[in-house]
Amino acid sequence: VVESQLSVDAVELGQYRHYMQKEIFEQPQALANTLEMIGTAQRLSPHLFGSAAPELLDGVTRVLILACGTSYHAGLVARYWIESLAELPCTVEVASEYRYRESVPDPDTLVVAISQSGETADTLAALKHARHLGMNRTLAICNVAESALIREAALKFLTRAGPEIGVASTKAFTTQLAALALLALTLASQQDWITGEEEARHLAALRHLPVAVQKVLELEPGIAVWARRFADKQHALFLGRGHHYPIALEGALKLKEISYIHAEAYPAGELKHGPLALVDKEMPVVAVAPNDALLEKLKSNLQEVKSRGGELYVFADQDSAVSEEPGLHIMRLPEHYGLLSPVLHVIPLQLLAYHAALVKGTDVDKPRNLAKSVTVE
Amino acid sequence: VVESQLSVDAVELGQYRHYMQKEIFEQPQALANTLEMIGTAQRLSPHLFGSAAPELLDGVTRVLILACGTSYHAGLVARYWIESLAELPCTVEVASEYRYRESVPDPDTLVVAISQSGETADTLAALKHARHLGMNRTLAICNVAESALIREAALKFLTRAGPEIGVASTKAFTTQLAALALLALTLASQQDWITGEEEARHLAALRHLPVAVQKVLELEPGIAVWARRFADKQHALFLGRGHHYPIALEGALKLKEISYIHAEAYPAGELKHGPLALVDKEMPVVAVAPNDALLEKLKSNLQEVKSRGGELYVFADQDSAVSEEPGLHIMRLPEHYGLLSPVLHVIPLQLLAYHAALVKGTDVDKPRNLAKSVTVE
Repeated sequence: VVESQLSVDAVELGQYRHYMQKEIFEQPQALANTLEMIGTAQRLSPHLFGSAAPELLDGVTRVLILACGTSYHAGLVARYWIESLAELPCTVEVASEYRYRESVPDPDTLVVAISQSGETADTLAALKHARHLGMNRTLAICNVAESALIREAALKFLTRAGPEIGVASTKAFTTQLAALALLALTLASQQDWITGEEEARHLAALRHLPVAVQKVLELEPGIAVWARRFADKQHALFLGRGHHYPIALEGALKLKEISYIHAEAYPAGELKHGPLALVDKEMPVVAVAPNDALLEKLKSNLQEVKSRGGELYVFADQDSAVSEEPGLHIMRLPEHYGLLSPVLHVIPLQLLAYHAALVKGTDVDKPRNLAKSVTVE
Repeated sequence: VVESQLSVDAVELGQYRHYMQKEIFEQPQALANTLEMIGTAQRLSPHLFGSAAPELLDGVTRVLILACGTSYHAGLVARYWIESLAELPCTVEVASEYRYRESVPDPDTLVVAISQSGETADTLAALKHARHLGMNRTLAICNVAESALIREAALKFLTRAGPEIGVASTKAFTTQLAALALLALTLASQQDWITGEEEARHLAALRHLPVAVQKVLELEPGIAVWARRFADKQHALFLGRGHHYPIALEGALKLKEISYIHAEAYPAGELKHGPLALVDKEMPVVAVAPNDALLEKLKSNLQEVKSRGGELYVFADQDSAVSEEPGLHIMRLPEHYGLLSPVLHVIPLQLLAYHAALVKGTDVDKPRNLAKSVTVE
């Protein structure tokens, strides 16, 4: 019996048109599955990262995160968490850069390699390079149990996103963030930088994520309307600050990958150091989760480009004291979420990219020239 | 007597059409002036950075560089120099990001703030923030002696670029690089990481820079030809690796600022993690100083976009074993320059941006929406 691949796909896709859309909507479940292993614990045990974790995490003085593409953006978010929760200095490097440059190794640095497939050639080579330099406190965060990266690292954390088919990573990213939040909390707890009470509160917020993400997904109809305005643009600028800057990077990457719109992200403060010259009606500006003070500055930065038709699209929080005005569009996320806010704010950007690609009619699940796992250099 | 401003400018501009062009061509002299203070020394004295330098640089264990825009790119180059010459871990942060995030301070970190004007609001605030966190080993690298940044820092190095009028920074950048190379060598020497012989060799290479830059400037006519092919594009991708990645960032920023072409830079290894989907005949790819192995990888990455008209423009070194072929254009720099190569490779990118802007007829010295010194947030 030869099954038609088309009908198998159709069954698997269910109500969805594309794997990417399906995977975006699977995020509440993927997060719940990934967080299942912490159960109802009020404090984390380092064993979450493997039996050697108590020994290998003890005495860690710094963290070095190595990754590519979307996983690199997850690492950039984690940097903020690790520095602010665990007070450990953290560096994040593009794997292909790290492996080829002369760096200064440190045996007390925890090296974290992140890859959905665990087969990303550059990430694997970067991890091997770090070990070669004498860094043996290594951790792989990965979605595939039997992958090369898992075999290479001393410690491991498996995300439970389930198979990800769409080339543009979505649920792998948010589950990587959950894993990295657990790592930041574990390191913070081990260093006694947070009280038991604070740890319990952070864990409660983590467990609530699936519900919170579900509510954000309900914004889809409004985002589809915004996407129609994007689909005829050649360019977009994504701005973020702090732990939302990597989310701006990730939003721009999604739009690039599947809609072929040239989107670029900047930390908001850099706008006036160059990219502001580009803004006109062909280059909408997307601001990710700015606080009110930042939004005032952005508005004043953009005042002068109003005459050239510059439009500002803002993903704000429920309590941001901003209101729509000509050239300023606002969409509010249902909940304000503090440290974990990046996990929520990436969702509308995934949906924006998806719907822009739908309007453009691109091959959403298999964008031109890109492979799901980059197993070559 | 009221002098006509126009004629004063004309005299000042001499043979040049714009300040930016004049300032690009002043770089050999600006570098020579900046390096004049080291005379014919075979070894550097820390006093180059101020009378308190021997004390404040002694015992430094890390370096943190804070800057915005073009100065940030200079910092990114310096990171490679400081890590490979002085074996000190180095972090470079966008000033507006650093000042607003929770970071982990360390009193043994040398904080280096870079700004042409010394009045950049975010850089000044970031330096104050670092001091507030208890970091008192501070150094300002600046082109204006009486600036706020110079007053705020314990140590200083004045670049001698002379007044920079064009909004797009050129000679300030290359003189900042010279200053940072001197800093890397001083730190290396102090830590006994390089021998006296190595130090003398690096100093000789530095002193030769004005001559080497002069030879690169002679490439202008060929670059003007390439610029005509760029001027009708909406996009460009700049790729670099290692200490040339920041040069790709700087080349993209120049093109953005004055020609309004949406140029974006990527570390070359990240091409296949997303941006490759964008490449077609409307998005030329510029590769900065790739070695031959990298160029082979790039060629294979770009193979599949050949059918969509993707074109690759390569700034190579004299001894790179590559040759032109359809869709692959090569320009060779006169000398191979090792660690200091970024100082040479940025020159043709400045010229490319300048000539693209000329063809487009933009206001080269005063690009829309940008100020010379960003003294507001």
